[in-house]
Amino acid sequence: MAQKPSTPKGTRDFSPLEMSRRNYIFDTIREVFRLFGYRQIETPAMENLCTLMGKYGEEGDKLLFKILNSGDYLKGVDPAMIECHDTGRLAAKLCDRGLRYDLTVPFARFVVQHRDEVQLPFKRFQIQPVWRADRPQKGRYREFYQCDADVVGSDSLNNEIELLQLEDMVFSRLGIRVAIKLNNRKILAGIAELIGEPDKLVDITVAIDKIDKIGLEKVDEELAARGLSQEAITALHPILQIDGTGTERLDKLAALLAPSEIGTKGVEELRTVVDGTMALGLNAELDIDVSLARGLNYYTGTIIEVKALDAEIGSISGGGRYDNLTGIFGLDGISGVGISFGADRIYDVLSALDLFPDSTAACTRVLFANFGTAEAAASLALIKKLRGEGIAAELYPDQAKMKKQIGYANAMGVPFFAIIGESELADGTVTVKNMADGSQQTIPVDKVAQTIA
Amino acid sequence: MAQKPSTPKGTRDFSPLEMSRRNYIFDTIREVFRLFGYRQIETPAMENLCTLMGKYGEEGDKLLFKILNSGDYLKGVDPAMIECHDTGRLAAKLCDRGLRYDLTVPFARFVVQHRDEVQLPFKRFQIQPVWRADRPQKGRYREFYQCDADVVGSDSLNNEIELLQLEDMVFSRLGIRVAIKLNNRKILAGIAELIGEPDKLVDITVAIDKIDKIGLEKVDEELAARGLSQEAITALHPILQIDGTGTERLDKLAALLAPSEIGTKGVEELRTVVDGTMALGLNAELDIDVSLARGLNYYTGTIIEVKALDAEIGSISGGGRYDNLTGIFGLDGISGVGISFGADRIYDVLSALDLFPDSTAACTRVLFANFGTAEAAASLALIKKLRGEGIAAELYPDQAKMKKQIGYANAMGVPFFAIIGESELADGTVTVKNMADGSQQTIPVDKVAQTIA
Repeated sequence: MAQKPSTPKGTRDFSPLEMSRRNYIFDTIREVFRLFGYRQIETPAMENLCTLMGKYGEEGDKLLFKILNSGDYLKGVDPAMIECHDTGRLAAKLCDRGLRYDLTVPFARFVVQHRDEVQLPFKRFQIQPVWRADRPQKGRYREFYQCDADVVGSDSLNNEIELLQLEDMVFSRLGIRVAIKLNNRKILAGIAELIGEPDKLVDITVAIDKIDKIGLEKVDEELAARGLSQEAITALHPILQIDGTGTERLDKLAALLAPSEIGTKGVEELRTVVDGTMALGLNAELDIDVSLARGLNYYTGTIIEVKALDAEIGSISGGGRYDNLTGIFGLDGISGVGISFGADRIYDVLSALDLFPDSTAACTRVLFANFGTAEAAASLALIKKLRGEGIAAELYPDQAKMKKQIGYANAMGVPFFAIIGESELADGTVTVKNMADGSQQTIPVDKVAQTIA
Repeated sequence: MAQKPSTPKGTRDFSPLEMSRRNYIFDTIREVFRLFGYRQIETPAMENLCTLMGKYGEEGDKLLFKILNSGDYLKGVDPAMIECHDTGRLAAKLCDRGLRYDLTVPFARFVVQHRDEVQLPFKRFQIQPVWRADRPQKGRYREFYQCDADVVGSDSLNNEIELLQLEDMVFSRLGIRVAIKLNNRKILAGIAELIGEPDKLVDITVAIDKIDKIGLEKVDEELAARGLSQEAITALHPILQIDGTGTERLDKLAALLAPSEIGTKGVEELRTVVDGTMALGLNAELDIDVSLARGLNYYTGTIIEVKALDAEIGSISGGGRYDNLTGIFGLDGISGVGISFGADRIYDVLSALDLFPDSTAACTRVLFANFGTAEAAASLALIKKLRGEGIAAELYPDQAKMKKQIGYANAMGVPFFAIIGESELADGTVTVKNMADGSQQTIPVDKVAQTIA
């Protein structure tokens, strides 16, 4: 036989069981999105390369999958570019299109392209795969689904409160206990201002974001290496060591950041979101975490991160507020806030905690044996009735040995195996075997639906 | 402002309304697949180019979207190939992967790759986009969804009978009246044998497949141009002019094709499928059509095509039996039968006949006005309760002018607009406005769910 074919590195097939479980996750999230008034859109897998390039930094440009042009794609290409293997610039000549790298840039493109039809505030959700030419490793794939909800065209913090309710409903329905961590970019800016290093905002946040992983001492070392003065580092300590309940933390932060206008604004915003959320009630734990920096260069207000409490797996959802989503396409003034669910990680948490409902393993409810032409015809007639009542039913298509047919029913995990043989055909009965306990009974044809329901 | 960004040529964005309608189609088909015991799989968007090349003919190879390799993709490429613009062979050097062109080849690859886990007969369905670098034109896109169900590893004609039942249930549920056309490749082979031109099977079927469009006379001309003798063409006429009921057509075909072994086998197969199907009953019209050739080089037995009766739009579904699906990957002996639904055409039929249910236009059931902080908080608390009862509800996030908020409710097509203003807040009531007839009533908070249900 020829070499076994395979999927490209970093990509996956999904088996029926995996699909059933993935659909369970997506259906749960989709239903919650619907209850909250988010509406689904889809964008094409490929975008014009000019839509994608420069949006994800230099490293991101390299990770874009680019699609070779059709026809004579070498026409007009400078031979010098080929000779010196200038593959980066050459790629932009050979390829006009690339695969979607995330759902945010296509969403921004969508809003600008369709701005005459889009009603603001626009609450959209989108569940589609994205592609990144990353080095594949455990849990990191070159093709994976993103699952995003965003509202654009509204500055109200009610959107943040709603998104936290949405996160809470999704994870409550999935049965995953979570902690939602909250911060505000303006608080981070206030901290940088307060310790006299406003220009080092990025350095500070990148460093303190690691505090959970590497500890305060290592963070101090990193801050020093990034050029922060010893005074600034010392001034940071009381802020990083803030503790207590949510209200206590907010009060302490407000006091510490009082000298900073932007810091004070950040604390006010955070308080509005926390108070509004707690007033409505939340199953999740809600933690204020001033070290949370997640995608800092992108977010401008609220920053959200969700972690599973019972699994060591990093964040399973997150998001935040951003200004000027569509500015990259020349349409200014549209800000928004959004969240994203990590389907692969949620899958891993549900697997690890054995939280997938039994229904995700279910397939056909009843498989009918095949004893020959007349028996099969009678079975098909009954199967048709069962399907009309919403019961998934099928006939073993071939007249194979009974052992083989039962083996198939077993392998497929079918809960009931039904037999219309010669005697059943004569009597108008069916023998129904419960595959779980091996019991079987012969019943009239019109009793099958209720027996296997 | 910068130039308006757009989707690449031949690709589309789907708006919330379009998504809702597309989901209606896919959900309907998916539910029927489930009732018939088909199980969903997904394969990656990209396949190794060697998996795809040579599977769709020379023309198909050109229509594959190829993905430029990462890193120095010029390394090891023969400069002569570049100099002479040998773009076809060069593409295979620059690109290791391509985008999926259909769902059949990836399915074959899936079966071979996972043959140790797959239980035969394997009934799978798959609903995913495919990509073709075709010239875009009305109704033809470079990205479109395919929606396929196949059963492999069973030769039984029960599979055909089931697939016709499945087609019937899908279109009954969608409310589209259809005719299902049936033929059998073995009948076509028998005809070619009978008229003494067994080697011209492809020419004959390509020509007679056009009979509906161009008429018998033009078909005769084409057959002559393809080198058929006048005797052969004359011998073909009685076969092409067979008419009557299904049984009559089968009897006439059986008589005419009696001299041909393969033709006789084809008529027997067709009779089994037709009789089995009619015994179960069918909403659709079932037509035997010996001119139906659809993808002849691929199909080896039953050929199926479904046309909408009330719209001029070509076929909206079709399929057939094939031998040796996985032979291209070195695993012989796995035959199957499958069907495919054309989602875009089904969408067009439902639009043209105004058959989309109203629910596909529905979004949020009730939008709450925003009168300020306290009112919004009370609204959010009620909204939370409504969502808990499965009612999609939302708050207008900003405290905008009432005219703007009502205008938004109107534009979104929300059926109810709810107001908790100062007096309602004091009374524990809500004013609910029916957007369809403009009527409004003020009711206690706990009566809202039943009022808008």
